[in-house]
Amino acid sequence: MYDLIIIGSGPAGLTAALYAGRFKLKTLVIGEVPGGLMANTDVIENYPGFLRISGVELTMKIQEQVQALGIEIKMEKATKVEKLEQHFKVTTLNESFETKTLIFATGGEHRQLGILGEEEFKNKGVSFCANCDAPLFRDKPVAVVGGSDTAARYALLASEYASKVYVFYRRDKLRAEPALVRSIKQQENIEVIYNVNVTELKGSDKLEEAVLDNNDNYKIAAIFIAIGQIPQSKLAKDIGVKINEYEAIVIDSLSKTNVKGVYAAGDATNTPWKQIIIGNAEGAFAAFSAYEDLKCFKDKE
Amino acid sequence: MYDLIIIGSGPAGLTAALYAGRFKLKTLVIGEVPGGLMANTDVIENYPGFLRISGVELTMKIQEQVQALGIEIKMEKATKVEKLEQHFKVTTLNESFETKTLIFATGGEHRQLGILGEEEFKNKGVSFCANCDAPLFRDKPVAVVGGSDTAARYALLASEYASKVYVFYRRDKLRAEPALVRSIKQQENIEVIYNVNVTELKGSDKLEEAVLDNNDNYKIAAIFIAIGQIPQSKLAKDIGVKINEYEAIVIDSLSKTNVKGVYAAGDATNTPWKQIIIGNAEGAFAAFSAYEDLKCFKDKE
Repeated sequence: MYDLIIIGSGPAGLTAALYAGRFKLKTLVIGEVPGGLMANTDVIENYPGFLRISGVELTMKIQEQVQALGIEIKMEKATKVEKLEQHFKVTTLNESFETKTLIFATGGEHRQLGILGEEEFKNKGVSFCANCDAPLFRDKPVAVVGGSDTAARYALLASEYASKVYVFYRRDKLRAEPALVRSIKQQENIEVIYNVNVTELKGSDKLEEAVLDNNDNYKIAAIFIAIGQIPQSKLAKDIGVKINEYEAIVIDSLSKTNVKGVYAAGDATNTPWKQIIIGNAEGAFAAFSAYEDLKCFKDKE
Repeated sequence: MYDLIIIGSGPAGLTAALYAGRFKLKTLVIGEVPGGLMANTDVIENYPGFLRISGVELTMKIQEQVQALGIEIKMEKATKVEKLEQHFKVTTLNESFETKTLIFATGGEHRQLGILGEEEFKNKGVSFCANCDAPLFRDKPVAVVGGSDTAARYALLASEYASKVYVFYRRDKLRAEPALVRSIKQQENIEVIYNVNVTELKGSDKLEEAVLDNNDNYKIAAIFIAIGQIPQSKLAKDIGVKINEYEAIVIDSLSKTNVKGVYAAGDATNTPWKQIIIGNAEGAFAAFSAYEDLKCFKDKE
C-alpha cells in the first residue's frame, strides 16, 4: 500500500514526487513519457534557473532529484483507476497498485489540425507555444491558427517579434475576449483572415507556406497552432473528480480536487495559463496537501 | 514611464521580471538584496532542476536570465510608493520612477528570538526552514521553537530524521490545528516542553545546547525557529492594498491584489505555504496579469 501514487511523469508529476520524497511519503510515479509534453520542447528560456535548456535535459535533472530520494518511477500507462472503500487502486497494462492518496498529473495534449505537413514541420516552424518560440522568428512573417484567448495572445506576442502575423480562423468573428480582440485590431502588423481553414503546410527542410481552403497561399516561417489543449482527465472522471466544460480537472489553490485524497497538477487542471513553473508549483502543492491529509487520516484511524 | 516596476529582487521578483521581459514590458526591478531571503540558504535541494544548489547560485542564474532580456535592476531600497491618477510613483533613497503597473515581491523576514547565540550559529544549527535543513540532522537530537501550524509541521518533519525532537513553546497548549497536534502526540520521538522560552543558544564551532528560562539545558544539534514570518507589506498598504491579519498581501489565483494594476508574489503574500517554486509561479502569474491588464488599459485610452 502506497501513501501516494502520482499518475504522470511530466514536470508537475515529477515535482510532486520530489516534494513527496522530502515529506517521506511512500510514493510511486506511473508515467508514459518522461517529461510529458515538455520533452517535446527544444528550447526553454522561461524556466527560472536556466538561461536555455531543452525539455529533455530539464526532465532528466528533475528525474535525477526524484530518484536520489529513492522514489520508484514506472514507465507504464495507467489504464484504470478505482475508488475502494478507504483507498484507491491504479491498474496499468501489467500490474495493479493500491494507494491512500492520488495525484493526477496526466497533462494535456495539444489539439492538432490533422493536416498534411503538420507532423513533418514540427519544431521546424510548426509550434504549439508562442511564448516558447515566437522570439525565434524575428522579422519574419508568421501565422496563428485559432480564435480563442490563447490564439489572440499568441498573435499579440508574435506581433512583437514577427514582421507580419496572419491569424487564420474558421469563423467570422474572433471568440477571444473583447479587450484582446481590440488590441489585435490596433496592432498594425496583425491581419485576421476569417472563414478559412488551413488545409496543408508546405516547405523543404523547414516550413515555408500555408495553404488555405479558399485556395490562397501564405508565405510564413512559423505557424502557431492554438486550437485548444485536451486535458487528460478521463481516469480522474472515472472516480468522481469534478471536470469543467473543457475536460480540465478543477482544483483549488492547494491543488485539491473535490474527492478527498485526490489532487491534480499541471496541464490537466483548470488553471487558466500553462507554464512549466506553474505546473511545478501545483505539483508541490499537491504533494503538500497529500502529506497534510495523510497526517489527518492517520489521526482518525 | 515604465509599464511595470517590480519591488523586490528575490526569486519571485526576478521570475516576474523574466516573464515581463518575455512579454516585452518596459520593466524596472528595484531590490535591496539580490535573491532576498533565498540568498541566505546554503543548500537548496527541493527546487526542481537542481539536485543541490546554493541560494546565491540560483539567484545569479535567474538574474542572468533577466539581464539577458535587457531588464534594468536597481539595487536600492524603495522607501515610498504613491498612487497617482492613472499610475504609480516609486521613490528610492536617490530617485523616483513612474509606472503603469506594480508588483510587490517584497518578501518576508523570519521573526527572530533575539537571544544570545542566535546570530552566531545561523547555518551552524540555527535554521528557519525545517523543509530545507531537517535532513541534515539525521539521528541527532534537535529542537523546534513555536506552537503554530508551521512549528508543528517542522516538528513532524524533523521527527522523521532526528533521533529526538523537543518542541519549546511559551504557552501551555499548542495552537496548531488539532490534527497536527494529535499527530505530534502520537509521534514517539517528539516531546513538547510547555511554558518555556529559550534564553540562550550555546556551542563551539556549531550549535550544541539550548538554555531555557526554567534553567533546564538541552543538548541539540539544530534548532528550527518557527515563531512567524513578517511579510513586508508596508509599502503596499500605503496605496490601499488589502493586507490580512498577519500583514500578508491578499492575492487571488492570478496574483492580483484588490488595487487595479497592482500584483504581489512570494513571501509577502497570503499563500499558506512558502517555497521558492511557489513564489516563482506567483511571480510568473503577476507578470502575466500585468501584461493582460496593460493590454486592456491601452484599449481604454
